[in-house]
Amino acid sequence: MGAGCNNNCPTCKCTKTATIIGAGLVGSLWAIYLNKAGYHVDIYERRSDMRKENISAGKSINLATSYRGWKALDEVGAGDEIRKIAIPMSGRTLHQIEGDLQYQPYGNAGQAIYSVSRGGINSKLMDIAEAKDTHIHFNEECIGVEMAEGKATFRNTLNGVVTEVKSEVVFATDGAFSAARYLGMQKTDRFNYSQLYIADGYREILLPANEDGSYKLDKESLHIWPRGRFMLIALPNLDGSFTCTLFMPFDGHTYCFNKLTSKEKVNDFFKEVFPNFYELMPDIAEQWEQHPLSSLAIIRCYPWTHGKMALMGDAAHATVPFFGQGMNCGFEDCTVMYELMQKHKENWPAVFDEYQQIRKPNGDAVQDLSLQNYLVMRDKVGDPHFQLIQKIERRINYLYPDQYFPLYSMVSFTNIEYKTALQKGNEQEAMIESLIKKNKLTHESELNEIDNLIHAFMKKELPI
Amino acid sequence: MGAGCNNNCPTCKCTKTATIIGAGLVGSLWAIYLNKAGYHVDIYERRSDMRKENISAGKSINLATSYRGWKALDEVGAGDEIRKIAIPMSGRTLHQIEGDLQYQPYGNAGQAIYSVSRGGINSKLMDIAEAKDTHIHFNEECIGVEMAEGKATFRNTLNGVVTEVKSEVVFATDGAFSAARYLGMQKTDRFNYSQLYIADGYREILLPANEDGSYKLDKESLHIWPRGRFMLIALPNLDGSFTCTLFMPFDGHTYCFNKLTSKEKVNDFFKEVFPNFYELMPDIAEQWEQHPLSSLAIIRCYPWTHGKMALMGDAAHATVPFFGQGMNCGFEDCTVMYELMQKHKENWPAVFDEYQQIRKPNGDAVQDLSLQNYLVMRDKVGDPHFQLIQKIERRINYLYPDQYFPLYSMVSFTNIEYKTALQKGNEQEAMIESLIKKNKLTHESELNEIDNLIHAFMKKELPI
Repeated sequence: MGAGCNNNCPTCKCTKTATIIGAGLVGSLWAIYLNKAGYHVDIYERRSDMRKENISAGKSINLATSYRGWKALDEVGAGDEIRKIAIPMSGRTLHQIEGDLQYQPYGNAGQAIYSVSRGGINSKLMDIAEAKDTHIHFNEECIGVEMAEGKATFRNTLNGVVTEVKSEVVFATDGAFSAARYLGMQKTDRFNYSQLYIADGYREILLPANEDGSYKLDKESLHIWPRGRFMLIALPNLDGSFTCTLFMPFDGHTYCFNKLTSKEKVNDFFKEVFPNFYELMPDIAEQWEQHPLSSLAIIRCYPWTHGKMALMGDAAHATVPFFGQGMNCGFEDCTVMYELMQKHKENWPAVFDEYQQIRKPNGDAVQDLSLQNYLVMRDKVGDPHFQLIQKIERRINYLYPDQYFPLYSMVSFTNIEYKTALQKGNEQEAMIESLIKKNKLTHESELNEIDNLIHAFMKKELPI
Repeated sequence: MGAGCNNNCPTCKCTKTATIIGAGLVGSLWAIYLNKAGYHVDIYERRSDMRKENISAGKSINLATSYRGWKALDEVGAGDEIRKIAIPMSGRTLHQIEGDLQYQPYGNAGQAIYSVSRGGINSKLMDIAEAKDTHIHFNEECIGVEMAEGKATFRNTLNGVVTEVKSEVVFATDGAFSAARYLGMQKTDRFNYSQLYIADGYREILLPANEDGSYKLDKESLHIWPRGRFMLIALPNLDGSFTCTLFMPFDGHTYCFNKLTSKEKVNDFFKEVFPNFYELMPDIAEQWEQHPLSSLAIIRCYPWTHGKMALMGDAAHATVPFFGQGMNCGFEDCTVMYELMQKHKENWPAVFDEYQQIRKPNGDAVQDLSLQNYLVMRDKVGDPHFQLIQKIERRINYLYPDQYFPLYSMVSFTNIEYKTALQKGNEQEAMIESLIKKNKLTHESELNEIDNLIHAFMKKELPI
């Protein structure tokens, strides 16, 4: 047992110790980072080991890994393992109610976001961490933290045994409803906290593969059925199936979850508003109850650190999923925290202080971006005027690839800070709006005319 | 014991029962309302009986009772008892740093807000409730609620005995950090909640009476020492003393609490920025530690009712104290809930539903008004331009007493809904701004000219 280690790891030679509460995506990745920095890590996880359960790919929500996620994974050499289970989606395929399909690329050639199953990526990260200097303790519920001391207490959910752990630093990566945050931060004076639910919930649906294992929809797209106030989306799984998610208000609208009270109503609803999806899955009503109806919240808080404890990932900044950035932002927390460890030579008070100052505005921004993108996905993507803005944006980006990035690209294909992306993105949209208005541009405008306007415009004001 | 009563009250003949959690201001008043409606009420209070402790008037924060408060008290005949311990304050006296005094009336002749001690009013309300059909159980901490069942569980803090109570309806009036809200509401899905601390804290100071028992400052004013980013205020007590409160940032400013780290620094601070106050109280530094430094938060949540339980007062809408409306708004919750009981013939699901729909926007508005009025009190009251707006407002109100009310009057001297007052008040300020600008009005403008402009203006657009 190493000098600084308080755990019973017979072979441990470490002198630096860290405790992580929660073995989810961010906790597992952060353990690998800490191992790289020479820390012995103990992760305590409330749930049982998901690798020993039979979780099929389509049964858990899918995630889209983008640039920030890959950067964080590659930094510790975990990217290639995850690439093996990731499916590139280079654009959106929109399914209009009449059955017309429209493809919108996410970025330039070669740029894509990647569909991965939460269970798949989480399991791989746990495997990698355990192969280094991390010990994961399952079925351990956090029942107390003493942040000033770096202490955390856990109760085993199977045998009731209580364990108190002390280490140099403690990281709470236990998600949106973090027990560590509640037991620690929330009891300090002047801790700001808000949980705000949006009016919409979601329900997952598994669209199975064809009998020969092939995909029922184009595999390399994120599919969207935009319907104004609600939408259905589908992300590909490795086995030929798609994980589909219906986002819709709980109540108070023509179409809402609380009106779908019988199999017949579910059947009629899909037949009416998602006819081409219904054709692929005529037994939708039978499947309806297989996944629960879930709610969606934005959780903000501050400060994110206190004494020897820091919040990371959803525990600090849980968001609604509409920009596909929840995991990517949590992974970027790891990149940033690690850079600060090096900058401040592991002087933790200095690391924690700068971490929360840098990351809090970005946590807020990723939440604002997520809310904003729900409008884009469910409504604006189908709007000809918005499509014209996107067309001109892509053209500017094509002509000035190093100087101009559309908002979606800044968020998904760069690591420009979220707060900067949000601000610049909104400024850029306003500028293109005025370009369109001033020059009366339409979808019929000549490419030549648009290019000339873009060149004049970019000479005058470089937006970035 | 009455048919619907689950408590051991030997003389009770009631058939309707209610449980109130918290015997503070709102809980005690609401009990009197429920008694009037024929309910037997049991209040469970975590603290001991304040009437048996020796709490002197000046030791607890003072409150200002205004129109809504009196209306709610008078509705159940409690107003006259409270008037005996209330001191009218008909305006603000501003103390400039040079020692100049300026008096600003709050409203028209005869209008005032009233200084009362929290302990004084609370004790009276408990006495009145107990003289009716209310039983107050002290030292009873709420440890659980089952909202659907109307059940609440308490543990006696002296002997550990646990009591489970069931009644037709349960009201949580246990304040900003409501245990009932946490144990009930906060565990339901889609409960929106936020606690946001402002950057400022407060510390109370007791300015004693002269040796002959007389007041050291004008008794019929609320005194303000406005200093831009911070302020000191003083409210009169019955015994000749004043309860003073310093509101100031915790840190990050030229003047802030975290810099006042020694008696010497406290002494120098008061001498420098509150010289006329310092003359009245040269031993300020000795007294400094007698009251704690406290924080200030806005707490918002929704829904306010679930099953058989409703939140009232601070448990639903705790605010910062700068409009003096926290208690008044909580008391108005009682007026509104009682009116709805009559409207819906005590059909509680209908009462609760309309209660939260009506009161939530007003709870939000009183919080917005409170934040806005901090700026007014600490800074704008001393600004000549703001004073000109106020002067013209008072004149419009004088000429059109039934058609125009300044914001302060709408909030303090009417029961116009808070949300309406907030909206109208801001619209009116903008209109007067434009009147001043358009006609180049100054403090030197002739009254005659101002009156003519007001008449023309009021003929054109009646703001209310």
